[in-house]
Amino acid sequence: MSKLTLSMAEKVIAAAFAKGAELKLKPLTVAVLDAGGHLVALSRQDGSSIMRPQIASGKAYGALAVGTGTRWLNANAETRPHFVQALNGASGGAIVPVPGGVLIREGDGGEVLGAVGISGDTSDNDEAAAVAGIEAIGKTSDCG
Amino acid sequence: MSKLTLSMAEKVIAAAFAKGAELKLKPLTVAVLDAGGHLVALSRQDGSSIMRPQIASGKAYGALAVGTGTRWLNANAETRPHFVQALNGASGGAIVPVPGGVLIREGDGGEVLGAVGISGDTSDNDEAAAVAGIEAIGKTSDCG
Amino acid sequence: MSKLTLSMAEKVIAAAFAKGAELKLKPLTVAVLDAGGHLVALSRQDGSSIMRPQIASGKAYGALAVGTGTRWLNANAETRPHFVQALNGASGGAIVPVPGGVLIREGDGGEVLGAVGISGDTSDNDEAAAVAGIEAIGKTSDCG
Amino acid sequence: MSKLTLSMAEKVIAAAFAKGAELKLKPLTVAVLDAGGHLVALSRQDGSSIMRPQIASGKAYGALAVGTGTRWLNANAETRPHFVQALNGASGGAIVPVPGGVLIREGDGGEVLGAVGISGDTSDNDEAAAVAGIEAIGKTSDCG
Repeated sequence: MSKLTLSMAEKVIAAAFAKGAELKLKPLTVAVLDAGGHLVALSRQDGSSIMRPQIASGKAYGALAVGTGTRWLNANAETRPHFVQALNGASGGAIVPVPGGVLIREGDGGEVLGAVGISGDTSDNDEAAAVAGIEAIGKTSDCG
Repeated sequence: MSKLTLSMAEKVIAAAFAKGAELKLKPLTVAVLDAGGHLVALSRQDGSSIMRPQIASGKAYGALAVGTGTRWLNANAETRPHFVQALNGASGGAIVPVPGGVLIREGDGGEVLGAVGISGDTSDNDEAAAVAGIEAIGKTSDCG
Repeated sequence: MSKLTLSMAEKVIAAAFAKGAELKLKPLTVAVLDAGGHLVALSRQDGSSIMRPQIASGKAYGALAVGTGTRWLNANAETRPHFVQALNGASGGAIVPVPGGVLIREGDGGEVLGAVGISGDTSDNDEAAAVAGIEAIGKTSDCG
Repeated sequence: MSKLTLSMAEKVIAAAFAKGAELKLKPLTVAVLDAGGHLVALSRQDGSSIMRPQIASGKAYGALAVGTGTRWLNANAETRPHFVQALNGASGGAIVPVPGGVLIREGDGGEVLGAVGISGDTSDNDEAAAVAGIEAIGKTSDCG
């Protein structure tokens, strides 16, 4: 059901970790979800805290949920918090609405292949690592 | 499975209660969790109200979830409440983001051995008792 | 709301662990709940697996839920499984219907002061340790 | 916080997939959890269905929950189904009690480092792949 292969997900994770090393980020957890919102691969670096898998997955899921990166959800959380809270409830708590959840698109505005969610450092740095991961497979990032 | 033994947890609780007595705090509940977020020991003093076990455990779990004491979560709850609300949802309500959840570290910035969560008095006093508990076993407190 | 003090709960746990050592049982987790079903104290011995706190608490809660020890629930699970399943649902999964959840009574058929739940070895051995714990505070066990 | 490093988890997954290829198994999903029950790494092969991540994780979590491989839970599900159902409820549905959840131990009966859960083929084959993964890092399998 997914065009996002495990081989692609592994490359995304490796490139995100490389970006984290380059920027000297804290230990990261990276989740790669297919277009249906299901995990393809997840890796948690040594020292990344215990809820990072849910946070990383929740960012990626949030991006898929609304069809754009979680930067959009983060902005909405300020302008209309009731909407973001409702999304949280409707998803059974599966959405984490801060930057770091980035859609993987086939070209600008193109088909959604999946999403990357990263947690561990600041939300901005998490997002930068996600973008680096998506670049590594030649796809387009949608940060929201 | 844990480096935080029951014997250590019992000492943490005894020292936290001693601090509570010294500061004339209200009846406390102390929860000690291992690095994976699972209870090692919990004690509720006579007169400590019925939900204190969940609150104390929730503070300790919150600290482990994000890898630092709950003072950090408390600050985040003011600057980006949607993030803290999302953590609550993602954890099935297992996180209580106010001071009083303190990581037990092996030295400054060292390995996380577990966490102490205390509830019963003000959050600041709860935290002071947790720090006293951790000092009693010669470990380092991370309040966030 | 409870006549079961923390001091009594600590004695129950110590005696249950002593019985476990005497019988050479596997590492145990002991939960002591007050009459309202709320934790007074819990201790998990080193090596007792991660879900033992929920299992031990769930046995004690099950005993309080139906007003007799979990041996009764275990028997009911065979004769009318739909009833025990419904209890599980109604309690949000808080009940574990196997032996090892024992009511603490003030004399035969007397007032319920709380319950002890133990998990770690066979259900029969868990129960034997719970009974030893209750004897140590001079109260009466109701195993169901 | 965990003795099960990401590097070890990656080796477990690679060896499990190699075993799957050798035995010509269906596409597998492999989850590797640390001793506290938190994901270290997960990989889902192309064509492995959408709930495999939860099933694989649920097998690994079940093994950690009771301190032995899920073959033990599978046997219990036949002899005392109410116990296994209760575990499901108590864990919020996080346990999948069929073979294929295997503890990673440091020697026979030794310390629990984490668990591997595999889903995709028959439960017996899933388990065989998990054992192969654990052998690849020189640790001991506990299948239950």
